[in-house]
Amino acid sequence: MKNHIVVGVDIGGTNTAVGFVDDAGNVGAQSSFPTNAHEPPEVFVSRLHEKIEAMRESGRRLDSLSGFTLRGIGIGAPNGNYLRGTVEHAPNLSWKGIVPLAEMVKGRFDVPVALTNDANAAALGEMKFGAAKGMRDFIVITLGTGLGSGIVVNGELVYGFTGFAGEIGHTIVDPSGRECGCGRRGCLETYASATGICRTVFELFAKTMLSSLLRAVSSRDLTATMIADAAKQGDKVALAAFEQTGKILGLKLADAVAHTSPQAIFLFGGLANAGDLIFEPTRRHMEAQLLNIFRNKVQLLPSGIKENAAVLGASALVWKEVCD
Amino acid sequence: MKNHIVVGVDIGGTNTAVGFVDDAGNVGAQSSFPTNAHEPPEVFVSRLHEKIEAMRESGRRLDSLSGFTLRGIGIGAPNGNYLRGTVEHAPNLSWKGIVPLAEMVKGRFDVPVALTNDANAAALGEMKFGAAKGMRDFIVITLGTGLGSGIVVNGELVYGFTGFAGEIGHTIVDPSGRECGCGRRGCLETYASATGICRTVFELFAKTMLSSLLRAVSSRDLTATMIADAAKQGDKVALAAFEQTGKILGLKLADAVAHTSPQAIFLFGGLANAGDLIFEPTRRHMEAQLLNIFRNKVQLLPSGIKENAAVLGASALVWKEVCD
Repeated sequence: MKNHIVVGVDIGGTNTAVGFVDDAGNVGAQSSFPTNAHEPPEVFVSRLHEKIEAMRESGRRLDSLSGFTLRGIGIGAPNGNYLRGTVEHAPNLSWKGIVPLAEMVKGRFDVPVALTNDANAAALGEMKFGAAKGMRDFIVITLGTGLGSGIVVNGELVYGFTGFAGEIGHTIVDPSGRECGCGRRGCLETYASATGICRTVFELFAKTMLSSLLRAVSSRDLTATMIADAAKQGDKVALAAFEQTGKILGLKLADAVAHTSPQAIFLFGGLANAGDLIFEPTRRHMEAQLLNIFRNKVQLLPSGIKENAAVLGASALVWKEVCD
Repeated sequence: MKNHIVVGVDIGGTNTAVGFVDDAGNVGAQSSFPTNAHEPPEVFVSRLHEKIEAMRESGRRLDSLSGFTLRGIGIGAPNGNYLRGTVEHAPNLSWKGIVPLAEMVKGRFDVPVALTNDANAAALGEMKFGAAKGMRDFIVITLGTGLGSGIVVNGELVYGFTGFAGEIGHTIVDPSGRECGCGRRGCLETYASATGICRTVFELFAKTMLSSLLRAVSSRDLTATMIADAAKQGDKVALAAFEQTGKILGLKLADAVAHTSPQAIFLFGGLANAGDLIFEPTRRHMEAQLLNIFRNKVQLLPSGIKENAAVLGASALVWKEVCD
C-alpha cells in the first residue's frame, strides 16, 4: 500500500469535506467547499472534480502528493446506498429521487468509487483507523442532528438486502411519541440526538417546576452544547435531560445488543462530546435492560478517531471494501 | 456429498429428537427419547450415544444407512452457544451452569460436533433446505412457548461477540410491561408467542366486556390453538388477541428490519400455524411502522420446511458450518 492514496469525501447538508488519506490514516491534504445542495447533482459533481484536481495539482507542486497512486474515491453521503452507489431521497439535500452519484463521479476519474451513508462510513473508519481495530462485532452510533448507526457483524459492515441496514435511529421508542422528520412518531432519534435532548429540556419545562438557567433560552436558540454546559454547572433540568436521554438510548441499545451481540458500542458526534454526562446514564440503563447472557459483556466507548473522522471514514470505505 | 450423512439432534425440555439427514434434506432414519433433563448431562450424553449407535446398527441391517460416511453431529439446544459448544444456564433443563456439551458428545464419536440454539438451527435449516435457499439476508422467528430468532447477514448466521446474538424475543416492548421468565419486564415474547397470546386474551377479559367462548376456559387450560379455533369461528376476543399480537410483533419486526434490513422474515412454530390470523395483522402493522426506505421490501413468509424441522435445522449446522 506504500505510495497509494484514497480520496475521502464527506457530503454534508452545508459543506463537503475532501481529504487525501493513506493506508495508515494520515490525511495528506484536505479542503472543503459549500455543498450548495439546491443545485443539481451534476453541478456538484463538476465542483467536486475541480476541487480534487486542484488539490492533486497543488499537492504535486508541494511534493506532498507526488509519486502517489490514486486507488479510489470513497464518499459518505446522507441516505447513501453502498449496494447501488446511489443517494436516495436525501432529506437535507434537495436532489430529487435516486441520484447515481458513484457512477457520476466515476465518469470523471478512472478509479473505483464507492459510496455509503455517513454513519456506515464512521463505522468503517473506526474499524480501519480507530478504536474498533481488530473487533469483528461492533456498532457505531453517531449522535448529531439525528442518530445514525453502522453495524459490523463478522468483520463486515451490514448493508442488508436493501443496502440501507443500520437505521437504529429509526427504531421506535413509542409509536405515539414525538414527531420525527421521517414522517412517523417516536423514533429513537427524536429522543437521543442533539435535537432530541433539546426537545427533552422543553418537555421537562412542561412537566416539572425545576428552576433552570435554560429557561432563559428560546427553542430556536437552544443547543446540546448549552445543555451540557448547564449540566456541568449542576443545572437540574440539564442533568435530568441527560438522565432521560441515557435511559431511552440505553433501552434501545439493549435491544440492539439482543440483535447482533456486539463487543462494543461506540458513541460518536456532537452529543457524545458531552462525555460522562451521556456515557454514564446510557451505560447504566443499558446494563439494567440487558438480557442476563449479555450483561457486563458490551463496552460503551468513545470513538478512537479525534480528527477528520468523516473524511477518514469515507476513505476507509475504499481501503476496506475495494483494496482489501 | 454423495453417501455422506449428518446426525441432527434437537434437545427439548421433554423429548430429544434424532435423525440421520443427507445433503438434500432427506431424513433416512429418525427417533426420539425422553430428555430426562433432571439427570446430569453425562447421563444424557450416554443415552444419546446409545440411541445413535442403535439407529446406525438398525440402519445397517435394513441397508438404509449402509455405505454412508458420518460427517458430523449437529445439535440444537436451548441456550446453545455455537462459539463455545456449550449449553449455558438453560432455563428448561436442570443442567446447572455451563455444560460443554459439544465436547462431551465429541468424546463418544470421532466426528465434528457443532451446537447452537434451536432458533439459530431453524434459520440454518431454512437456508439449507427451506424457503430461504439463496437468500443472503433473512430472519427466522420461532413462535412457540417463547419467541426465538435466528438472524442471517451476508449469508452467515449472526452469533455475535458472545455467541448469543439473535434474541429478538427479549427486545423490550414496554419496560414496565409483562413479567418475563428472564427476570425482566415487557420482553417481546411475553406478548408474541403461544403463551403471550394467552396472556393477551386474559388482558382483554380484564379490559373489555366482549363476549367470548374462551371465557369458559381457565388460565391453566387455555392454549394458542384454542384461540385460533375460536378466532376461526369469529370469536371477538380471539380476533382482538390476534390483532394485538400482530400489532406488537409487527412493531418489533420493523425495529429488526431497521437493524439488518432482511429480504424476508419467516414465522415458524406453533403460533405461525394459525396462518393468516397471525400473518395478516403482523404484516400490516410491520409495514405501517417501517421507515420509508424499507417499505414493501420485506417479505413476511411461512417456513418452507413442513416436517422434521428441528432435526433438519440441527443437521444444517454441520452441513453449513462444518462441511461447506
